[in-house]
Amino acid sequence: MIRVPELIQRKRDGEELRDEEISELILGYARGEVPDYQLAAFCMAVYFRGLSPRETFALTDAMVRSGETIDLGAALGRKVVDKHSTGGVGDKTSLAVAPIVAACGVPFGKMSGRGLGHTGGTLDKLESIPGFRVDLSTDELVAQVRDVGVAIVGQTADLVPADKLLYGLRDVTATVDQRSLIAASIMSKKLAAGAQAIVLDVKVGDGAFMKTLDDARALAETMLELGREAGRTVVCLLTDMDQPLGRAVGNALEVREALATVQGQGPADFTELVLDASARLLALSDLGVDEAEGRRRAEAAVADGSAEGAWRRWLRAQGGTAEEDALPVAPVVREVTASSEGYVAGLGAIAVGLAALHLGAGRRTKDDAIDHAVGVLCRAKRGDRVERGQPLADVHARDEASADEAAREVLAAYRLAPEPPPERPLVLDVVD
Amino acid sequence: MIRVPELIQRKRDGEELRDEEISELILGYARGEVPDYQLAAFCMAVYFRGLSPRETFALTDAMVRSGETIDLGAALGRKVVDKHSTGGVGDKTSLAVAPIVAACGVPFGKMSGRGLGHTGGTLDKLESIPGFRVDLSTDELVAQVRDVGVAIVGQTADLVPADKLLYGLRDVTATVDQRSLIAASIMSKKLAAGAQAIVLDVKVGDGAFMKTLDDARALAETMLELGREAGRTVVCLLTDMDQPLGRAVGNALEVREALATVQGQGPADFTELVLDASARLLALSDLGVDEAEGRRRAEAAVADGSAEGAWRRWLRAQGGTAEEDALPVAPVVREVTASSEGYVAGLGAIAVGLAALHLGAGRRTKDDAIDHAVGVLCRAKRGDRVERGQPLADVHARDEASADEAAREVLAAYRLAPEPPPERPLVLDVVD
Repeated sequence: MIRVPELIQRKRDGEELRDEEISELILGYARGEVPDYQLAAFCMAVYFRGLSPRETFALTDAMVRSGETIDLGAALGRKVVDKHSTGGVGDKTSLAVAPIVAACGVPFGKMSGRGLGHTGGTLDKLESIPGFRVDLSTDELVAQVRDVGVAIVGQTADLVPADKLLYGLRDVTATVDQRSLIAASIMSKKLAAGAQAIVLDVKVGDGAFMKTLDDARALAETMLELGREAGRTVVCLLTDMDQPLGRAVGNALEVREALATVQGQGPADFTELVLDASARLLALSDLGVDEAEGRRRAEAAVADGSAEGAWRRWLRAQGGTAEEDALPVAPVVREVTASSEGYVAGLGAIAVGLAALHLGAGRRTKDDAIDHAVGVLCRAKRGDRVERGQPLADVHARDEASADEAAREVLAAYRLAPEPPPERPLVLDVVD
Repeated sequence: MIRVPELIQRKRDGEELRDEEISELILGYARGEVPDYQLAAFCMAVYFRGLSPRETFALTDAMVRSGETIDLGAALGRKVVDKHSTGGVGDKTSLAVAPIVAACGVPFGKMSGRGLGHTGGTLDKLESIPGFRVDLSTDELVAQVRDVGVAIVGQTADLVPADKLLYGLRDVTATVDQRSLIAASIMSKKLAAGAQAIVLDVKVGDGAFMKTLDDARALAETMLELGREAGRTVVCLLTDMDQPLGRAVGNALEVREALATVQGQGPADFTELVLDASARLLALSDLGVDEAEGRRRAEAAVADGSAEGAWRRWLRAQGGTAEEDALPVAPVVREVTASSEGYVAGLGAIAVGLAALHLGAGRRTKDDAIDHAVGVLCRAKRGDRVERGQPLADVHARDEASADEAAREVLAAYRLAPEPPPERPLVLDVVD
C-alpha cells in the first residue's frame, strides 16, 4: 500500500518519485481509492516542482493503463496516423485534414474532445451538422474507418478514465498550465487510441495555453519523448495562436470554413496549415511517400474534388447531412467596421474567443449548452490594410443585445497601426 | 461570489489576497461550499508562496469567526492560562503539565488536537486510556475545570470548525509544515478558547515541523504577533526536537511515561521541560508568583503526590480508568540492540516517529484508525554510552512483520560514534 501523503511530500520537496509510486497513485485515483484532495495537492506540488521525463512517462503510462486501449492499426491491418491540436481559437484543422488524408488513401480515425473555456472542441463543431453522431462505439469506429476511410468520434468513457478525472480536477484547482500534466493528458489519449504516428499541433501565443515559443518547444519535446518511450513517431508543429486561425470562430461557421478549404477556397493561413499537416501525416503513413510528395497528393486531392467527396461520404456515414444549407444560421449578423484606417497590427485570439464564448459558441461550465449558429467571422486579419468604415468582422448572434456586446469585444480585439506589422509565419517551428 | 480557482491561481502566482477574499474562502470552506480539493490546492500554493503577516491574521481571524468562541476565564472568574506545543515526536508534555498546574491551584482547561503526520496528538494519547471521553461539551468543560481543576478535551465542533477541517486536510496532503498555516491553526484555537496568557512550546529540529532555530523563531514571532493583534500575552519556548522527547513514542506508551513523570520518575529531559513549562504557566497565572517560585511549587506538587492525585481525579472525571494496567499492550515487543559500541551521537526523531506511524500509532489518511498499543520505547538517548549487543530500544508492534520493519527503521535512526556528542540544552531559547 502506498502512503499518499508521503508521496505528495516527497514531490513537494523536489524528489523524483519511482514509476510504481506514480502508477499506484494514478490507478488508485482512477479506482476512487485516492481522494480528489490528495491529487489536487499533488498537482499543485507538481506545478511548482515539475516532473522529470521519467516521472512524466510513468504518469502517462499509468493513465493509459487506467482504462481500455484500442489498436486501430491491428483492426485495420494498416498503419494508422493521428493528428491532435493543443487547442486554439478557430482551430478546425482536423475537420479539413481528415477528408484530405482519407482521399489520399490513408485511414483516419480520431477520438476528439469537447471545448472548454475560450477554445472550441472538434466534437462541438461536428455536432453543428444536423444528424451527426459523435458517440460511436469502438466497433462502429473501426467499421467506419475500414469502410469509409475516415471517422472522428468522442472519447469513450472506458478510454483513459484517469485523464478524464484529472482534467476535471485540474480545471478547478488552478493546475491546468503545467507542461508535464498537459503532455501526459494529451499523449495518454493518443497512446490509448493506438496510432503509430502522430502529428501534434502545439499552439503558441495569446490564445493558447503556451504563451511563448520556448514554452511550446518544451511541451513539444516532452511529448516527443513520451512518444519515443512508447515506440510511436511524433512530429510537432509549433503554430501561431496570437490571432484566430482562419477567419471563422464558432461551430457552424467553422464547419463551413473547413468545407471551403477542402474545396480549395479556404483562407490562406488555414489552408497552409491544413496542407502542411496533411503532408506530414501522409509522410508518416504506410504510403511510403516523403513530405514533398505528401504535399503534392494533398493538394491534388483538394484540386480534383476527391477530398470533397471524402468529406461528404464521412458526414453521411456518421448520420449527418452533407448539405451546407442545412447548417444552422444565426438570426442576427452585425458588421464590425474600422473606426480609422491602417494596418491590422494585432487581432487578439483570446478576445475573439471570449466574444464567441459570450455569444454562446462555447461553454463556461461543463454542463452549458452550445449555440452552434453563433460566432465571429474575421474578415480582416493581421497585416491586412483597412480603410475607415471598412468591415473588419461579422458577428453572428442570437439576438441584438448579444450582437452589440460581441461587436464591442471584437472591435477591441483589433489593433490598427499606420505601418504593416512584421511578417510572422503560421508554422513557427517543427520539432521532431 | 468568489471564484475559487482564480484565488488559488493568484496565490499560486505569488499575489497577496485581500482580507475579505481569505475570509470568504475559509468561511465558504467551513460552510461546505468550497470543496476539500480546492483548499488542498490552495494550501499547497501557500506552502510554496507563503502568506504575508496581514494574510496570516486574516486567515486566523476568519478561522475564529467560522464558529463559536468561549471565555473560560469569565466563566470561572479566574485568569486562565493555556499551554500548547507545535508537536514533536514523543511530546506528551501537556499530559504531565495539566495535573501539576492543577495541583498548584491554577485551573487548567485545554482544547487539544489529534495527531498530524509523524507526530502524535494529545487526544489520541488520551484515547488510549479505556473509557476516556474527549468529546465534552463546552458546559461540561467549564464544569469540570471548576470542580476538578483540570480538563483536556477535543476541540468541539462549534469551536473553530474551519481549523478542524483544515487541520485534517493538511495532514493528508503534505501541507502541515508551513509557518503561517501552523501559526493560524494554533492561534485561532487559543484565541477562540479565550485564554488570556499562553505558553507555546515551539519544537525545533529533525522531528519537528520547524527544522532550524531560525524557522522556529520565525514561527514564534508570527504567533506572538497574532497574539498581540488579538490582545493576548504569549511566551514561546523553543525546545529541542532532534531526538524524541523522553523515551516513549506511541499513545499508551506515552501515557505511561507522563504518569511516571507526574510521579517524579520520568526521564530527565522530559521532566525538565514539564517543570519549566509548569513554572512559566504558574508565573503567568493569577497566583502572583514569579517563575522561580512557580518552579518550586511545581516540584513540590510532584514530590508530595498532589500532582498524581490531580492526574487520577482528572482521568476519572473524564470517564477514564486511572489503572495503569488497563492501558492497551502490544502483543509483540521486539528489542533493538546496538551492533557496535559507542556513544549515541544522534537519534533521528523523524525516523522514530515514522517507525511508530508505520506500526499504526498515527494516521496515514484522515479516517485511519489508530492502534493505541504500538510504538517505540527509546532506551538509549543522545549522549548515552552503549556496548555492542546492548538494547537501544523496544519496538511494540501488532505483529511480527511490522515489528521487523520498525526494528530496522529504529536501528537506522541511531547513530553511534566513538566520542560523546556535544551537549545541547532542551530549552534552546525563549521568545516573549
